[in-house]
Amino acid sequence: MRVALTLIFDGTHFCGWQAQKNGQSVQETVCGAFFKLFGQRVAVTGCSRTDSGVHALAYVCHADLPTPFEAGRLPVALNFHLPASVRVKDARVVSDDFHARYSAQGKTYRYLIYNAPHFSPFYEKRAFWVSQPLDWGTMTEEASAFVGKKDFVSFMASGSSITDTVREVTSARVFPAEDALCCFEVTADGFLYNQVRIMAGTLIDRALGRLGDAVHTILEAKDRNLAGATAPACGLYLYRVHYKDF
Amino acid sequence: MRVALTLIFDGTHFCGWQAQKNGQSVQETVCGAFFKLFGQRVAVTGCSRTDSGVHALAYVCHADLPTPFEAGRLPVALNFHLPASVRVKDARVVSDDFHARYSAQGKTYRYLIYNAPHFSPFYEKRAFWVSQPLDWGTMTEEASAFVGKKDFVSFMASGSSITDTVREVTSARVFPAEDALCCFEVTADGFLYNQVRIMAGTLIDRALGRLGDAVHTILEAKDRNLAGATAPACGLYLYRVHYKDF
Repeated sequence: MRVALTLIFDGTHFCGWQAQKNGQSVQETVCGAFFKLFGQRVAVTGCSRTDSGVHALAYVCHADLPTPFEAGRLPVALNFHLPASVRVKDARVVSDDFHARYSAQGKTYRYLIYNAPHFSPFYEKRAFWVSQPLDWGTMTEEASAFVGKKDFVSFMASGSSITDTVREVTSARVFPAEDALCCFEVTADGFLYNQVRIMAGTLIDRALGRLGDAVHTILEAKDRNLAGATAPACGLYLYRVHYKDF
Repeated sequence: MRVALTLIFDGTHFCGWQAQKNGQSVQETVCGAFFKLFGQRVAVTGCSRTDSGVHALAYVCHADLPTPFEAGRLPVALNFHLPASVRVKDARVVSDDFHARYSAQGKTYRYLIYNAPHFSPFYEKRAFWVSQPLDWGTMTEEASAFVGKKDFVSFMASGSSITDTVREVTSARVFPAEDALCCFEVTADGFLYNQVRIMAGTLIDRALGRLGDAVHTILEAKDRNLAGATAPACGLYLYRVHYKDF
């Protein structure tokens, strides 16, 4: 019996989703809760790796239960064994061929920027603080330049071994959130390594007037050096994973 | 030269605004930053006491500077010496008869409720988690019953020595905030001890169907025992302090 879990986690104190030698991962933490619940090791497969410090509002993973267990009762049962920084908010039975990563048709990320002269204690490690005023017109216009099926190699961390760097961005927008928060939201069929953080960093650098080339020029140049800085992990949230029939 | 500071603070690890023998107060923390900046003790007077764990988005205090200092540069200078949990977001010169507490004509508080089957790591200690679904119709209707100049003795912590318990509530409303957050916002010329937390607790108890008497009945009875529970401090935020010409 395969189940898909939807998790919300504060990534501040994790080394990311993937189990690693150094640091505590979200994956191991969830595996630990399964072990306590079922008394045996249960493999948990996630929808993507995430960097250290990146957050999730709806991370999806799947697992095959070793013994029958009512899916509706799984969130409460697992949350009992999980730290407060990770919550299971949904669990549902899925077909045996469902795969959290390979069945995903796309993902939506949000990048939060706190744009005010002084930072807020409520967004420490949860948003990127930019003290100088951002030019909204530039942010909005440049975000729209990401939309389409394009080669995003200029927005991939250098050193990545991926060769097919074409992705389809179906939506990219900037909107004001509560207080002084600014949100960059982007949806695509897939993302290259650090792509959203480089996109966010580029929008910020453009909106502060410290990057000469516009997004469309950077895309055409296929050169990581022309894009902006990689914005910090703390502002990034995996917001939704899109599946057919889910 | 008297200055008024507007502070934003996460009250989780403070014993409240007021200096106390046990625990670290926000007042002492701000005094400490002034001491480091001016090399001498500066008295800081706040707009109100706050309970341990209560937050503020715009707490106002005043201080008389021992030596001239440009008000516009005070936030950066003080923030340098403050912990990340307290930020000065505004400083302005005020007249010598301005008093953070006595000049205040009213205050607005917000009480945040996270209403979902499972809690969110992002609202730990920053909202009150209510897992059962709240009845919005009841919340909205009952909140409006607080508006007016009324005796709020039923909504004051028992044991308080205050005798004039009449306050004028000019606005009281409930609205949905982001995610599963529900916000109760109330403005009045003043508040009794624990008044907002008892108001919030009463709205919640009414919306869950576990309190028989309606707000207007509780107000008329002038009996703390008829009102609901005192909602936890972690959900309470001082949102605005209202002054003439400020």
